[in-house]
Amino acid sequence: MATRTNGIKRAGTPVVAFLSDFGTQDSYVAEVKAKLLGADPRPLVVDITHDVTPHLPAAGAFHLLRAYWHFPPGTIFLAIVDPGVGSSREAIAVEAGPYRFVGPGNGVLRWAVDDAARRAKLPARVRVIEAEGPASATFHGRDLFAPAIVQWLKFPRAFLKRPEGQLGGLPFPEAVVRSGEAKGILLHEDRFGNLVTNIPSSVAVNGGRVEDRSVVLRPVPTYGAIPEGGFGLVAASHGFWEIASKDSSAAGRLKVKLGQGVTLFVDAAH
Amino acid sequence: MATRTNGIKRAGTPVVAFLSDFGTQDSYVAEVKAKLLGADPRPLVVDITHDVTPHLPAAGAFHLLRAYWHFPPGTIFLAIVDPGVGSSREAIAVEAGPYRFVGPGNGVLRWAVDDAARRAKLPARVRVIEAEGPASATFHGRDLFAPAIVQWLKFPRAFLKRPEGQLGGLPFPEAVVRSGEAKGILLHEDRFGNLVTNIPSSVAVNGGRVEDRSVVLRPVPTYGAIPEGGFGLVAASHGFWEIASKDSSAAGRLKVKLGQGVTLFVDAAH
Amino acid sequence: MATRTNGIKRAGTPVVAFLSDFGTQDSYVAEVKAKLLGADPRPLVVDITHDVTPHLPAAGAFHLLRAYWHFPPGTIFLAIVDPGVGSSREAIAVEAGPYRFVGPGNGVLRWAVDDAARRAKLPARVRVIEAEGPASATFHGRDLFAPAIVQWLKFPRAFLKRPEGQLGGLPFPEAVVRSGEAKGILLHEDRFGNLVTNIPSSVAVNGGRVEDRSVVLRPVPTYGAIPEGGFGLVAASHGFWEIASKDSSAAGRLKVKLGQGVTLFVDAAH
Repeated sequence: MATRTNGIKRAGTPVVAFLSDFGTQDSYVAEVKAKLLGADPRPLVVDITHDVTPHLPAAGAFHLLRAYWHFPPGTIFLAIVDPGVGSSREAIAVEAGPYRFVGPGNGVLRWAVDDAARRAKLPARVRVIEAEGPASATFHGRDLFAPAIVQWLKFPRAFLKRPEGQLGGLPFPEAVVRSGEAKGILLHEDRFGNLVTNIPSSVAVNGGRVEDRSVVLRPVPTYGAIPEGGFGLVAASHGFWEIASKDSSAAGRLKVKLGQGVTLFVDAAH
Repeated sequence: MATRTNGIKRAGTPVVAFLSDFGTQDSYVAEVKAKLLGADPRPLVVDITHDVTPHLPAAGAFHLLRAYWHFPPGTIFLAIVDPGVGSSREAIAVEAGPYRFVGPGNGVLRWAVDDAARRAKLPARVRVIEAEGPASATFHGRDLFAPAIVQWLKFPRAFLKRPEGQLGGLPFPEAVVRSGEAKGILLHEDRFGNLVTNIPSSVAVNGGRVEDRSVVLRPVPTYGAIPEGGFGLVAASHGFWEIASKDSSAAGRLKVKLGQGVTLFVDAAH
Repeated sequence: MATRTNGIKRAGTPVVAFLSDFGTQDSYVAEVKAKLLGADPRPLVVDITHDVTPHLPAAGAFHLLRAYWHFPPGTIFLAIVDPGVGSSREAIAVEAGPYRFVGPGNGVLRWAVDDAARRAKLPARVRVIEAEGPASATFHGRDLFAPAIVQWLKFPRAFLKRPEGQLGGLPFPEAVVRSGEAKGILLHEDRFGNLVTNIPSSVAVNGGRVEDRSVVLRPVPTYGAIPEGGFGLVAASHGFWEIASKDSSAAGRLKVKLGQGVTLFVDAAH
């Protein structure tokens, strides 16, 4: 089977990459996958994470933004962080560049979709989707989003002939880079306690500080180069500057909050 | 390949849905999957959850009951919550309606098997299975259950020609629905702190109370409709009434225990 | 497709078994899998665990040692516990018996590779691998190891024509078994609080003690046979003696540390 979307030819088993705040203690994730098993062609499902901070679409948006572009063209991203399930938010299906997205129109898809559209230099197509049969008011992942993906896989060309919808949420909070400094925020804390900022690692910096904290941060080439007992600024793999500490949690040691301000000192030559 | 079980034709890659209390910190789950990789045909393995409360077959039975019927006909459910491994409990393989089950005969399979048999209006076939070669006394998942599935996939017709076995455990604790009220228990707490009861959401109710707690619960159409700082009764996606609170844990706020009584007020017109 | 490695014929979809300390809260694991999706042939990826104690290669080495030999011949093990990413440690690809391994040369692969080579009675082939294009200094899993596997799957014969490398790390800490006693250490604590020793369960014992603890441990045939409130020595499924307690955490009750000494009393007849 080979299909085309936006001129990108796709062959072989389709891929669904699945992100949610469902956790893995209950059967929510499995019930969604059970519905996808009924698709023809049956997709390969890859979990991104199901441990997104519950009810926080922006946390899901961050994970999706950093992960999506490593997947093959044609991948369908199913991203469900949905505190407003059953309320007035739309359910949407999106095509942006060579990628496809399904989820609630509350912003969880927005940062990745905007990025994919910008890279492709084509506007995203955002469409409203609705349940075909009776859907539970509380579990759209299983009863609306998964069946929509089944339809999309079956009718790859016709599926998007639907009314226009809205991504919802807010745009990515871009850091402000000026001569001399880059002002941003702490965007995310990972499992190791590393603090991810929204300042692109393509900006050359020679130091920095977190708002209301006195420690001066210095850039290091790798985690291994962070001095014992100290901190380092790492140009991390997701494309943003990250604050790390040696073999311990930077977040725990700095006692900071996500959203707190960060200023990095931009190289004069920049 | 197409096979028939109970008159249900199955085609394509077989599916094994896997539930356990093994957790994901150790390699237990992977060792079971490693054995299933040797099957011909090789099945697609979907995890239901591996975070069932350790050593509590009834907790596994709940997850299996709510999840199993969303899977395609022919799915083999491997459910292992097995505090009595190596003791006198039987190891069993079960056919119930279009579904197949493998696990210990301690009740972990019982609620789903009973439900599948009732829906199919056919009694379940429960068979005793035994290890073919030497099995460790402590890891039947890898050494007995997974090899049994390999055999079942290889010999789909002949496999159940074995002595009759027992599901074990207790039947599902049915709620008592009378004119005026439905009496049940708190059956499960999910990751969001929602409290799942055993009272079917098909019973129309206009309120309720948890035993020894004064707060009066009111039904809401969706989680989003729960008032700020309040609680709601939600006819949840798993088919039971659920007690939820707005953006916080109902279990934490009510300070209740699983097994505690719940009374819902049944609509007069019911 | 059928290929040969060390005289072992492999057919069908190749298997990659993936172990790391990345956790499942972030998208690290998914980004590695995204890269593997681009392989031809596309492998089936099975997770061993991603909850290895962060930055502790020996913890990963233990999980890999106990799990690897249950997988089919030809499996490629990707094991990443890599505190020294970006530093001078080598990145390596290894062939040992019918198995293949990819990861950092810091010892995380060593115990499994040594065991596989010993069983095969053939020395392991250890080769240095390097990134083909630009690799982030911080995420070799995605930018170096996964692309190396893509190459290995594409060129199964030619791939290992590279300079010799080093496994790194320390050999498995063998227990000392003498007439009368076996002296070892506490190697690992699992999710149930069971304490895994490095003393092979093939050594017949009639009791034992943990260093600096007074309780005398007695062997039991199964977990179920541990007396109420007591402890038991179990010849566990991974091949080592394990200290367990009835329906509770042996580690929590004994208040011991990993690495602490253990002495088991060897049967006189042994």
